[in-house]
Amino acid sequence: MKPYNKLSKEELLTLKGNLEKQFDDVKKQGLKLDMSRGKPSKEQLDLSTGMMDVLNSTSNLTGSDGTDCRNYGVLDGISEARNLLADMSEVPERNIIIYGNSSLNVMFDTVSRAMTHGIMGSTPWCKLDSVKFLCPVPGYDRHFAITEFFGIEMINVPLLETGPDMDMVEELVSKDAAIKGIWCVPKYSNPTGISYSDETVRRFAHLKPAAEDFRIFWDNAYSIHHLYEDDHDVILEILNECIKAGNPDMVFKFISTSKVSFPGSGIAALAASKGNLEDARQYMKMQTIGHDKLNQLRHVRFFKDMQGMYHQMEKHAAILRPKFEKVIEVLDKELGGLEIGSWTRPKGGYFISFDGLDGSAKAIVAKAKEAGLIMTDAGATYPYGKDPHDSNIRIAPSFPTVKELEEAVKIFVLSVKLISIDLILQNK
Amino acid sequence: MKPYNKLSKEELLTLKGNLEKQFDDVKKQGLKLDMSRGKPSKEQLDLSTGMMDVLNSTSNLTGSDGTDCRNYGVLDGISEARNLLADMSEVPERNIIIYGNSSLNVMFDTVSRAMTHGIMGSTPWCKLDSVKFLCPVPGYDRHFAITEFFGIEMINVPLLETGPDMDMVEELVSKDAAIKGIWCVPKYSNPTGISYSDETVRRFAHLKPAAEDFRIFWDNAYSIHHLYEDDHDVILEILNECIKAGNPDMVFKFISTSKVSFPGSGIAALAASKGNLEDARQYMKMQTIGHDKLNQLRHVRFFKDMQGMYHQMEKHAAILRPKFEKVIEVLDKELGGLEIGSWTRPKGGYFISFDGLDGSAKAIVAKAKEAGLIMTDAGATYPYGKDPHDSNIRIAPSFPTVKELEEAVKIFVLSVKLISIDLILQNK
Repeated sequence: MKPYNKLSKEELLTLKGNLEKQFDDVKKQGLKLDMSRGKPSKEQLDLSTGMMDVLNSTSNLTGSDGTDCRNYGVLDGISEARNLLADMSEVPERNIIIYGNSSLNVMFDTVSRAMTHGIMGSTPWCKLDSVKFLCPVPGYDRHFAITEFFGIEMINVPLLETGPDMDMVEELVSKDAAIKGIWCVPKYSNPTGISYSDETVRRFAHLKPAAEDFRIFWDNAYSIHHLYEDDHDVILEILNECIKAGNPDMVFKFISTSKVSFPGSGIAALAASKGNLEDARQYMKMQTIGHDKLNQLRHVRFFKDMQGMYHQMEKHAAILRPKFEKVIEVLDKELGGLEIGSWTRPKGGYFISFDGLDGSAKAIVAKAKEAGLIMTDAGATYPYGKDPHDSNIRIAPSFPTVKELEEAVKIFVLSVKLISIDLILQNK
Repeated sequence: MKPYNKLSKEELLTLKGNLEKQFDDVKKQGLKLDMSRGKPSKEQLDLSTGMMDVLNSTSNLTGSDGTDCRNYGVLDGISEARNLLADMSEVPERNIIIYGNSSLNVMFDTVSRAMTHGIMGSTPWCKLDSVKFLCPVPGYDRHFAITEFFGIEMINVPLLETGPDMDMVEELVSKDAAIKGIWCVPKYSNPTGISYSDETVRRFAHLKPAAEDFRIFWDNAYSIHHLYEDDHDVILEILNECIKAGNPDMVFKFISTSKVSFPGSGIAALAASKGNLEDARQYMKMQTIGHDKLNQLRHVRFFKDMQGMYHQMEKHAAILRPKFEKVIEVLDKELGGLEIGSWTRPKGGYFISFDGLDGSAKAIVAKAKEAGLIMTDAGATYPYGKDPHDSNIRIAPSFPTVKELEEAVKIFVLSVKLISIDLILQNK
């Protein structure tokens, strides 16, 4: 195909007329399609159906250390659940605390705790004039929502193929003591799908922040969420790297089983150094008498160990893979060579990241909506919802069926073409 | 029996010798007994065994409105769970939000939110020089722990037979805009077991606080936790009274099923006005994608409706009643007429409150510990752990068996007698 910007005005107008007809035809179908959120499909949820049977009225509901999982207590979580999530998080059991059903909640509470009580004895952030976070972009909208909610100033850092621009990160954190944290999705990043290189992880571990209470918020949301059985991204374990670098307290690791078992009823965890966990416990022991231990037990009895989890993730991959491949197939076929967009080819995670022409993203998302396709809001992958190039769009292929996706991507592609032609025509 | 203070020094010394022998005999038995926490017994947990069966792999896991309870979403909780807990909380469904497994967590988050974001547009409490709470005493140690943790100054208010001393409450809240809240356990209060009179509830609803963001923290922890089938305390519904009084936004109601189903795996809720819930949602939507809806569904399928809950509570009562009666029977028999202590006779809840001679409580608890009986720390029922009279001790009879309780109360009674004799002798 010839790039659109090489076409003459007349060719573009003819093409536009054609595409508009196609778009109107699709619009008439009154479709309702959604590629907006990283939500597992019904078929994926069915993979954990057996979890509803592992505990019943004849089950022994006592943990391995004699804990009655029905009653109050056990702030850190039952030992077997700590073991399982420690394995998932690649840390020793002593470095993990189990929480409730949402790692987002653990991240929120961690920021909230720093606001009201500081970190390991430092000044509470709410008492400071300025608190800043580094935000690799494009990134996860719910991370940015938390920091915005607490009035924390967010600074964009470009996310490269190898991870955040570490020259910039090193420079900023070493000079500005108001910078207290950085949001990271180190593996199969949301939305670009890249994984941090070993060098990036090591440079993170060796940071020399000006702020003693600077922390890396390491959201390992897709740690075992591969799409291909024999082609996995592997990242270095950050807590261990931080220990080796003499910075054991610099990282909070977040993990959950939300996209392994049930999104609404998983278990989440915080992995960190002894000092950080002790700090977290001081807060937790005021906040709760303990999280849901029956659900912890349910997870352990269902998965048994990491092999059980890996096996489960292969089943998820078998469902997700064709969806990702379908989206990429249509994008390749319909947009390849047109030079009006580029897209990622992730090996795991939940998203494909699309970059259109500068100034096209909002218009593409609005156009797609006309034909009944809901995309993540343009700008959502940037702090304050402001994409400086207005070019990035996050595609979430997990929830629709492959058939629905085919329809959805066609609408998307038509929208990209129409909006891009308008932009090119404006500049002719 | 003759009151101890009417005995001569010689009589007291003889008695002391006798009691010390008895105490040494008990001590030699090396007992390990615990009357420290309001923790349901294994027998009570077994009442909800059937809850482990209501959902299994063949169940329809879809809520009445079509929600797949396994997936993300539904911030307020599924409609049928909101219905059930709205009934339990005696409010319309629109006035309730379902949370996770712990009402303590909801209370903590509510205070934390006020600290960082204020309430309904008011100044965040962390930006104020002084924030104060009224604390009816004796009261619940975990309430006081939350306010202390956030550096909120606590002011003792005597808890009378009818509820907090409302003359004092009215006077204080109307004059001091730094007073932002009051902790209340309005029914079967922790630890005295009293329930607020209608007049008290109405006076609460008609408060004219100096602070626009003053809130009543109404922890209805024992709303349906009666000990007797035909002799219940009944309290006025506070949200409705506040609406009638023109103060719809003045109250947060907290409730949970922790002592109805499983303490570690119940569901909790916040009931409040539309404005307050909207405020809470702004926070929640940053904090989580939704709480555990399968556990919400499990509760609804198990209890069905309030009649199901009432029936369950009658079974709890049948287990708890003999325990409360045993404690009171031994206290009556062993301490009646001695004028060295008084104790409550609650019709519900989880505690008996004991008041010894001034300056006796810490020593009694320490003495009991010598013989292997753990009581709640003396002072725990007061802010900062400081009981100004050092007289109040909370007795929690729920966890031990009746037989164990009989042993435990004997140790307690011996400890009370020995410490009281020492105090009286000091003043002779």
